[in-house]
Amino acid sequence: MTNGRVFNFSAGPSVLPEEVLSIAANEMLNYNNSGMSVMEMSHRSEVFESIINDAENHIRSLMGISDDYKVLFLQGGASTQFAMIPLNLLNKHKKAVYIDTGSWASKAAKEAKKYGEIVTLASSKEDTYSYIPKLDSKTFPSDIDYFHITTNNTIYGTRYTPNTLPNAGEVPLVADMSSNILSEEYDINQFAVIYAGAQKNMGPAGVTIVIIKENLIGNALDMTPTMLNYKTHADKDSLYNTPPCYSIYMCKLVYEWLLKKGGVKAMEEVNKYKANLLYSFIDNSSLFTNPVAREDRSLMNITFVTGNPDLDSAFVKEAKVKGLVNLKGHRSVGGMRASIYNAMPVEGVEKLVDFMKEFEVQHK
Amino acid sequence: MTNGRVFNFSAGPSVLPEEVLSIAANEMLNYNNSGMSVMEMSHRSEVFESIINDAENHIRSLMGISDDYKVLFLQGGASTQFAMIPLNLLNKHKKAVYIDTGSWASKAAKEAKKYGEIVTLASSKEDTYSYIPKLDSKTFPSDIDYFHITTNNTIYGTRYTPNTLPNAGEVPLVADMSSNILSEEYDINQFAVIYAGAQKNMGPAGVTIVIIKENLIGNALDMTPTMLNYKTHADKDSLYNTPPCYSIYMCKLVYEWLLKKGGVKAMEEVNKYKANLLYSFIDNSSLFTNPVAREDRSLMNITFVTGNPDLDSAFVKEAKVKGLVNLKGHRSVGGMRASIYNAMPVEGVEKLVDFMKEFEVQHK
Repeated sequence: MTNGRVFNFSAGPSVLPEEVLSIAANEMLNYNNSGMSVMEMSHRSEVFESIINDAENHIRSLMGISDDYKVLFLQGGASTQFAMIPLNLLNKHKKAVYIDTGSWASKAAKEAKKYGEIVTLASSKEDTYSYIPKLDSKTFPSDIDYFHITTNNTIYGTRYTPNTLPNAGEVPLVADMSSNILSEEYDINQFAVIYAGAQKNMGPAGVTIVIIKENLIGNALDMTPTMLNYKTHADKDSLYNTPPCYSIYMCKLVYEWLLKKGGVKAMEEVNKYKANLLYSFIDNSSLFTNPVAREDRSLMNITFVTGNPDLDSAFVKEAKVKGLVNLKGHRSVGGMRASIYNAMPVEGVEKLVDFMKEFEVQHK
Repeated sequence: MTNGRVFNFSAGPSVLPEEVLSIAANEMLNYNNSGMSVMEMSHRSEVFESIINDAENHIRSLMGISDDYKVLFLQGGASTQFAMIPLNLLNKHKKAVYIDTGSWASKAAKEAKKYGEIVTLASSKEDTYSYIPKLDSKTFPSDIDYFHITTNNTIYGTRYTPNTLPNAGEVPLVADMSSNILSEEYDINQFAVIYAGAQKNMGPAGVTIVIIKENLIGNALDMTPTMLNYKTHADKDSLYNTPPCYSIYMCKLVYEWLLKKGGVKAMEEVNKYKANLLYSFIDNSSLFTNPVAREDRSLMNITFVTGNPDLDSAFVKEAKVKGLVNLKGHRSVGGMRASIYNAMPVEGVEKLVDFMKEFEVQHK
């Protein structure tokens, strides 16, 4: 890369398109002849309203979101959604189903337990979350307010593919899509709510996207803080209070970059190409292995180990010297993890595979 | 100003120091030879930890915050604090006192009513919030969990001066300081909690500073969402989940700018000089008036009217042509408002007074 930049495999916050960062740098002191930075603008100004409207229209277009969904730009990350989902949706049966596919899925369920009865229908925890549990929709309870999944598990490198989503029938399917939103084409109509922190595939940390069916808004529990009530934000188009304006502007720029690249379908092809480069190398390697069930493999977060923790550490250290950084696995699982989000260029993955080959030759 | 920039009198988000924006632009693609933008960094990386630690140390030094206070960098704006304060503090008497000095103070009280008994001890609402009610501390109830004020009222242009703060005695004094934090020297030890959205005197929207006595942390109501519990964030030094990293970085840069300018005392002198330029002109004007009680006047938000709404509109419009923008008063009060936060140069206020003189001559 240019400008002394590295290939950054961080799981999040993570790499952003260099073109987007350059635009942001160029517009920092004077956005579009407004005479000021986007950071300095009233959120009630026409110029900012056009930024947030563009951001909303772009993501609607990228994901094929119809008018019966609201798109909200909120704060607090997915961790705040862990509370907002039950506070807003546990209003009839006071009961919901969660599938435990990793640490974040588990945290979401734990938070929801404060506000109702939570059934963890399946878990792959016993096998270090190395697969997505297969479910029989006939066993799903129907007296529930929603069914919660995590589409991509950042730490363990698993995902629901667009074809393996659970069929919750009439029950609203709620998905934490923080780490693979906009990476491949899901059918939006299978979901009632999608939420995602921006800091992986959309922009900087500090803004959370919520896509929610309008008919689910307006029945929050009485104790719900005003700021955690979807209705507060839906009624004011995310301008009830000052939103995280600059982060929304960055999302707009990333969405424009995605549209220019051909949208989600085109991105999906590149992502599959990049993931395949890594997985095929690992599958044929005499040194590296990936512990995840093949049909559940993530396109975004690819974990691998040598089987020797010292060698793993040496790999991470030597990779860094080559400008391939943040390859250390999550502290809870160890080994390595390459997060190859939309903004990771093919060249970065090629360079990583080259280095893995080199390292393998040296250490076999 | 250079680069086609205007003088921006927006009440928030508002003007930032041009030097700070230039540094941010220059570091956008590669912060401190890390090979990446601050937006792309893991919040668990050493380089980001040094950013957030610097930010905390700088604000501690600027405000004289001792070790028995925690400094937290949170999300959700002051509006989220309106719920966090009662959820975390209404744990003994289930009762608190609020002083109603404006729309935001009133919203804070309204939110708190969800979680306990709220006594509005005094209000200046009947007089369009044109003054700060004078209180006799002998009349303060003592069976309360806290006493809440808003130190500066952005919409109406009033403030508590450092010498007119209510003496709540042993009762924790809680202050929304969103619109005048770091603008003049308050004695931090008079407060138990100070909270402030960043988007006026500290940085971009999207981060909220909470300065809270440690002994008030840890007794939140059971229903409190994990993310709204101060203990969650205090225990992890604001890194429980991904914080709004870039906004924190911008705060760090603004704090460094403030330190270079001589700190809060030096800023206070400049702020008084700027405010005085405007107030003395208005007080001697045959056209403009300011409706606020003199002893309660804000240093940050200065409201004025001609008494003729058409003339007010003409003023705002003509000022804009001269590069003096966002002078329209809040939609709830009309007229004009010049927000002259720390980052507004003296030159901006001088240009505004010059234009007011010109306008007065034309319209008297």
